[in-house]
Amino acid sequence: MTLEKGLKIAVIGGGSSYTPEIVEGFIKKYEQLPLRELWLVDIEAGRHKLDIVGELAKRMVAKSGLPIEVHLTLDRRQAIEGADFVSTQMRVGLLEARKWDEHIPNLHGVIGQETTGPGGMMKALRTIPVLLDICRDIEELAPDAWLLNFTNPAGMVTEAITRYSKVKSIGLCNAPIGLHKWLTKKYDTEANRLYTEFVGLNHLHWVTRIEVEGEDKLNELLDKREEYSGKNVPATEWDPEFLRTLGGLPSYYLKYFYMQDAMFEEQLASLKANGTRAEVVKRVEDELFELYKNPDLQEKPKQLEQRGGAYYSEAAVNLMDSLYNDKRDIQTLNVSNGRVLDFLPEDAAIEVNCVVTSKGPLPLPVTKVPEQAKGLIAAVKTYERLTIEAAITGDRGIALQAMAAHPLVPSVGVAKKLLDEMLEKNKPYLPAFFK
Amino acid sequence: MTLEKGLKIAVIGGGSSYTPEIVEGFIKKYEQLPLRELWLVDIEAGRHKLDIVGELAKRMVAKSGLPIEVHLTLDRRQAIEGADFVSTQMRVGLLEARKWDEHIPNLHGVIGQETTGPGGMMKALRTIPVLLDICRDIEELAPDAWLLNFTNPAGMVTEAITRYSKVKSIGLCNAPIGLHKWLTKKYDTEANRLYTEFVGLNHLHWVTRIEVEGEDKLNELLDKREEYSGKNVPATEWDPEFLRTLGGLPSYYLKYFYMQDAMFEEQLASLKANGTRAEVVKRVEDELFELYKNPDLQEKPKQLEQRGGAYYSEAAVNLMDSLYNDKRDIQTLNVSNGRVLDFLPEDAAIEVNCVVTSKGPLPLPVTKVPEQAKGLIAAVKTYERLTIEAAITGDRGIALQAMAAHPLVPSVGVAKKLLDEMLEKNKPYLPAFFK
Amino acid sequence: MTLEKGLKIAVIGGGSSYTPEIVEGFIKKYEQLPLRELWLVDIEAGRHKLDIVGELAKRMVAKSGLPIEVHLTLDRRQAIEGADFVSTQMRVGLLEARKWDEHIPNLHGVIGQETTGPGGMMKALRTIPVLLDICRDIEELAPDAWLLNFTNPAGMVTEAITRYSKVKSIGLCNAPIGLHKWLTKKYDTEANRLYTEFVGLNHLHWVTRIEVEGEDKLNELLDKREEYSGKNVPATEWDPEFLRTLGGLPSYYLKYFYMQDAMFEEQLASLKANGTRAEVVKRVEDELFELYKNPDLQEKPKQLEQRGGAYYSEAAVNLMDSLYNDKRDIQTLNVSNGRVLDFLPEDAAIEVNCVVTSKGPLPLPVTKVPEQAKGLIAAVKTYERLTIEAAITGDRGIALQAMAAHPLVPSVGVAKKLLDEMLEKNKPYLPAFFK
Amino acid sequence: MTLEKGLKIAVIGGGSSYTPEIVEGFIKKYEQLPLRELWLVDIEAGRHKLDIVGELAKRMVAKSGLPIEVHLTLDRRQAIEGADFVSTQMRVGLLEARKWDEHIPNLHGVIGQETTGPGGMMKALRTIPVLLDICRDIEELAPDAWLLNFTNPAGMVTEAITRYSKVKSIGLCNAPIGLHKWLTKKYDTEANRLYTEFVGLNHLHWVTRIEVEGEDKLNELLDKREEYSGKNVPATEWDPEFLRTLGGLPSYYLKYFYMQDAMFEEQLASLKANGTRAEVVKRVEDELFELYKNPDLQEKPKQLEQRGGAYYSEAAVNLMDSLYNDKRDIQTLNVSNGRVLDFLPEDAAIEVNCVVTSKGPLPLPVTKVPEQAKGLIAAVKTYERLTIEAAITGDRGIALQAMAAHPLVPSVGVAKKLLDEMLEKNKPYLPAFFK
Repeated sequence: MTLEKGLKIAVIGGGSSYTPEIVEGFIKKYEQLPLRELWLVDIEAGRHKLDIVGELAKRMVAKSGLPIEVHLTLDRRQAIEGADFVSTQMRVGLLEARKWDEHIPNLHGVIGQETTGPGGMMKALRTIPVLLDICRDIEELAPDAWLLNFTNPAGMVTEAITRYSKVKSIGLCNAPIGLHKWLTKKYDTEANRLYTEFVGLNHLHWVTRIEVEGEDKLNELLDKREEYSGKNVPATEWDPEFLRTLGGLPSYYLKYFYMQDAMFEEQLASLKANGTRAEVVKRVEDELFELYKNPDLQEKPKQLEQRGGAYYSEAAVNLMDSLYNDKRDIQTLNVSNGRVLDFLPEDAAIEVNCVVTSKGPLPLPVTKVPEQAKGLIAAVKTYERLTIEAAITGDRGIALQAMAAHPLVPSVGVAKKLLDEMLEKNKPYLPAFFK
Repeated sequence: MTLEKGLKIAVIGGGSSYTPEIVEGFIKKYEQLPLRELWLVDIEAGRHKLDIVGELAKRMVAKSGLPIEVHLTLDRRQAIEGADFVSTQMRVGLLEARKWDEHIPNLHGVIGQETTGPGGMMKALRTIPVLLDICRDIEELAPDAWLLNFTNPAGMVTEAITRYSKVKSIGLCNAPIGLHKWLTKKYDTEANRLYTEFVGLNHLHWVTRIEVEGEDKLNELLDKREEYSGKNVPATEWDPEFLRTLGGLPSYYLKYFYMQDAMFEEQLASLKANGTRAEVVKRVEDELFELYKNPDLQEKPKQLEQRGGAYYSEAAVNLMDSLYNDKRDIQTLNVSNGRVLDFLPEDAAIEVNCVVTSKGPLPLPVTKVPEQAKGLIAAVKTYERLTIEAAITGDRGIALQAMAAHPLVPSVGVAKKLLDEMLEKNKPYLPAFFK
Repeated sequence: MTLEKGLKIAVIGGGSSYTPEIVEGFIKKYEQLPLRELWLVDIEAGRHKLDIVGELAKRMVAKSGLPIEVHLTLDRRQAIEGADFVSTQMRVGLLEARKWDEHIPNLHGVIGQETTGPGGMMKALRTIPVLLDICRDIEELAPDAWLLNFTNPAGMVTEAITRYSKVKSIGLCNAPIGLHKWLTKKYDTEANRLYTEFVGLNHLHWVTRIEVEGEDKLNELLDKREEYSGKNVPATEWDPEFLRTLGGLPSYYLKYFYMQDAMFEEQLASLKANGTRAEVVKRVEDELFELYKNPDLQEKPKQLEQRGGAYYSEAAVNLMDSLYNDKRDIQTLNVSNGRVLDFLPEDAAIEVNCVVTSKGPLPLPVTKVPEQAKGLIAAVKTYERLTIEAAITGDRGIALQAMAAHPLVPSVGVAKKLLDEMLEKNKPYLPAFFK
Repeated sequence: MTLEKGLKIAVIGGGSSYTPEIVEGFIKKYEQLPLRELWLVDIEAGRHKLDIVGELAKRMVAKSGLPIEVHLTLDRRQAIEGADFVSTQMRVGLLEARKWDEHIPNLHGVIGQETTGPGGMMKALRTIPVLLDICRDIEELAPDAWLLNFTNPAGMVTEAITRYSKVKSIGLCNAPIGLHKWLTKKYDTEANRLYTEFVGLNHLHWVTRIEVEGEDKLNELLDKREEYSGKNVPATEWDPEFLRTLGGLPSYYLKYFYMQDAMFEEQLASLKANGTRAEVVKRVEDELFELYKNPDLQEKPKQLEQRGGAYYSEAAVNLMDSLYNDKRDIQTLNVSNGRVLDFLPEDAAIEVNCVVTSKGPLPLPVTKVPEQAKGLIAAVKTYERLTIEAAITGDRGIALQAMAAHPLVPSVGVAKKLLDEMLEKNKPYLPAFFK
């Protein structure tokens, strides 16, 4: 670590609309994380957004009075070289690709979602090769850097990195911190008086222990389930009888599995009313960038919080703090399974509580795993591993196996149709499949 | 073993239409299996069929000239006492119950099948308590006996027995022997020149190695899939591209998962044309019993072979032979996993190659497990374990979790409806649920 | 937890000479651990010592001005009832038994040591039944209490408790905290700037990671090994070449294995010069109790620190603090293996880093295990498990297997002689063996 | 397999005095194993013995009238090219090296033995690199060949091959077949009426099940242990009380561990009377070669049976038969652990029952593993793995760790002395250590 001269942090996909959040995070945590150089890097297609959000970042830093240099660049290698932390928040194919991820499955009667189901699979196929390419740079130019990966599907991307590169990498999601924020508010307590235990995969977890000031609140929460739901997931009611015997508070993404029919109906209705979720997000983002352009704006605008990725930057900055300062606190992260879940391979990425030391996160044993959850976790992990293999090899047969193995895809026949149409639409982003 | 005075074998569900097959098997194998007393036992409701098929059995034995005593009884304990082997081939609730197992799911857009999906679950709920009751008798009256379980769903029933009783038990299916019969014919070879490796669960296996006279034939069979299909499963075409990368020849029951949509359509069409499969079978059985009544009939009638359970008795008699004579040959059986599949619990029943010694079957390590198969095996095993727990406890909440966990049930909402209707229809057979 | 009215803590073996240490610890930590009732309990044979040390404890508390009640009792059940924490620090058979534990092996050319080898085995046989008896009381009278076990051999005792009782129990040793104290002094740093990773069993561990302020110091410490040695273990030099490739800093008890010959010589020399270690300790204790009697003494006398069990009470009080306040810090404890070490059973007690939560310690995965250490750990664990079985059953054959399995016992012949003589000497304390 | 034109078999170390045995075996099994070309290959230093024994082999074949060609060669590559089976029976360093393996440990008060302890370690260091070199040739010239390894220490050599080459290899010992021969004679029965289960490593196994015609004879054999002992291991009496609770019939090599003291005394006495075992063997071999020279000799001389390696060739020929003919019988072999023993790594070589198929041996699950055996197995395996690493790297520090980890080496101090002296004596055979 470049202790004396401060830290160098590279944010890949720096032109993202989320950037003001992470910049705000760095400013707030400056005392713990002495950031000297912040490199926002993007690709040519994102240059315009990078300029807008980068200038806002500079104004925010200037207002803070802190000695942080903000660099904007399209030269990824320059940004990575010698970095202490690299974070990624990218969207290969932009919102246009997401639109098809969501739309094509719907046309075949299947859930269309950014990270779950056929849409998530396509996102993984587009993203994994790009991330591994970034890892090659990190291996060469910043071998001691920590890579904090927010790029979805974060579980598969993290697993691909840990299996196919030497980069020290951790996957992150805002769901765990979101649950904590909600619980602290609901029970009027502080984060360190909460204990929660997560079991599962990214966007496929069950919270199997919730203790507030030492008291078990899990059954209370399962019994009279007041709705906790991310802004980017539509609210459909859980069945109370089902929840009571489920053994854990389900991730809101589990609605796509447990309420497949109702969620599909809701997607159709929403599509009719507002277009795809990608199109909705596109409008929100356009509005945000309009705000960002304002040269008088020197802070993160309130509107960003409605964007859906609440607490992402807080999660990121907390993790950097713990790694840098060896805080040894417990955070819920995406890491290699090791021997935590006995029904998954040791190199499978899971989302689980970890103690974060300066040498990295150590996953904690899980104290219970509901039988109910095991089959679904294993089924989705099979799909994930096949998808990773397909992303790396470009093998269409393996991609078909992956698609057919996904629990939301009803048959091989549908899988083939989806695969054909979706690969075709993603042709520009899938060189391995179209050699 | 009662070596000097010959063996005592009890067949529970002895009034079954299959009985002539197993009697024929005993006659053919007499030299290896010196059967002295054959006890056919049934319940009061099956007395009429027991009488008919029992008399046929006596005529068959008489014709053989062998010193085998055939006993017909409704007293299960007398039949079991001191037995060397007990085999079960029963149908709790008879074909009437099966009719609803098949029909109700269809009404909700779900596969209706005897052993797979909601129908199989109901069959398990009805059957497991009865089998465990039989096990109590065996523990008391014939603690050294081997229980050969043909009663479907054979995997779940076997697992329930091995986990909740001390009886030495093995589950059997005719699919493995059926494949061998087909291969020997197709390649014009002998059974001992074949080597096949099965991986998975009962009615959910993949054949991952097929060697004929030392030559690997798996890819050839996967590539130009000439149809192998049990008589009781409708023929729908596998997708060749899918098969090629599947890594194993799928059980024909896997069609319900991989071709859910087409199989459902076929069920509807068949229902319209012939009624449920249960009703079809009922007609076949009625015809068989008409034949059996003929006092001149002294052998298994040809028509029985079309009944669907081909080779069941051969599988059973072969297994008894190997246990009794310590043959140490390889048979594909349903046994406890031990450490064979690393993603399943040690006490989970799996269907896998075993060496059969006089002390029981020893499962062989599997030389490959396709990644493609793991998730589905794990998902179905989760459903199975929840179902077993529900069968033992009569806990409706666990039953709901089991139903919702089945990969063929699309949502918790549908699961609840199925559960409500199906439990209600099965009320007479589910005392644990209706205390 | 009796939050409002303060904590109740029972110290079994309260008449120990160590008691002033733990009393001092409670006084110092009062703010974190609001102790209301401290129960010092001992057996009839220890009444005299209990009175002396108990009065000192009362004077110490009085001087502190804190509202802590000190109770002295021979009624164990009264002490345990409703306790929040129970700690044990007992010596079944007193120093007289220890004398023979050390002496008899020496007579047969074998290491004679309190916790390691045949001596440790006898101590386990005497102690385990007594501890399990205490556990019966805790299960009945204080089922939510934590049992902190300092009683040696702490690993075996802890494993026996976790396998044969329902009491929530943790085993503790002063070696890990001792290493930290030494490192903080050596490197002039603070405890929370250290990171150490322990692998192994109680009194049989290797420290495989030592980081001081983020820097790896393990090889430095292995290379030029400045002597770190507990006061109660004689100093014999490690071979530098051996240490360099050992992969971890060895526990000083490992000298008994790696330098068996030199350590044995040293024992003989020391025996000649000073008598057994038990006799030396006896003299030290007598002197301590002389000091304790002084009615003007109101604090822990300096001389206690030379007694050998330095930091024991600090370890205990830290652990209670973390459990009570859900501190989630990392401590090295004796707990069930779970899936941490893949070559030991899940219910084997190991000594390993844990995160201490209010629900108990969660063992952390080990980041490396030297191949060099595995065989010895496994061999000693086999001896331990056989010893536990012998302690519970009183089976002489199993005891012989345990003795013969210990790596320090050179043959079955010697094992038999040792067993015969040592069981005989311990007859009053081994009712299970002399029914 | 070269079915039409018959098999090619290469015997490396073909000049061994054992060769007439294996030639006799091939002649007897000709019907099952249609051997066409037998290549006996040796090194320059063994040319003279190769000529003598090779000519005898030719006379034996001539007498049999079978169409087998016997080739004698010093060109290993020519012998290996296109072979179906390669067997190895070599002694790197000849009996001279063995002499020091046995003698030097004795000088330091340690068991001196060919395969166990420091002697076995040196043999491994000399042999593993040579075997791996042979494997390079097999990989290139006969990639489908099976390598049957008799070369001691067979466990370590086999593990080295399976971990560091792609050759299909199996390790063989004559102890299992020797036990069977003894049991069939003792109980006047046939081999296929026996069932034995072996657990452990090569020269370190326990026989945990012995059934004769279906009856359990283990306890009978443990209770009144009539001596079964290989000719090359001195007979010292087992302690009956110890045996009774050991849980399995111990390998006679276990005497070196369980009766270390008595065995050492016996070695000293024997050394005084007859010189080292190597010298005794040397005399026997010289006598054998004198016999072999006799041009009238056309068969294996009786005297060879007293040589110590009884049944080796029968074991080898049986194994080839089962591999070639896919016999699927059960043999006790040295193979990779897989998931058989849960306390050893998956790639550790173990000695265990296997079903031998044409695709190789499949290890059977063990039905019991005595707790008593686990620690010793693990300790010796640790020594073995460190030895293999040392053999491959030539790393002296690892070699020291291996030596110190051996349960028969009492301390690091003794380990260092042994290592220094033994490495020096073996200098010509250890290029990796003396670069």
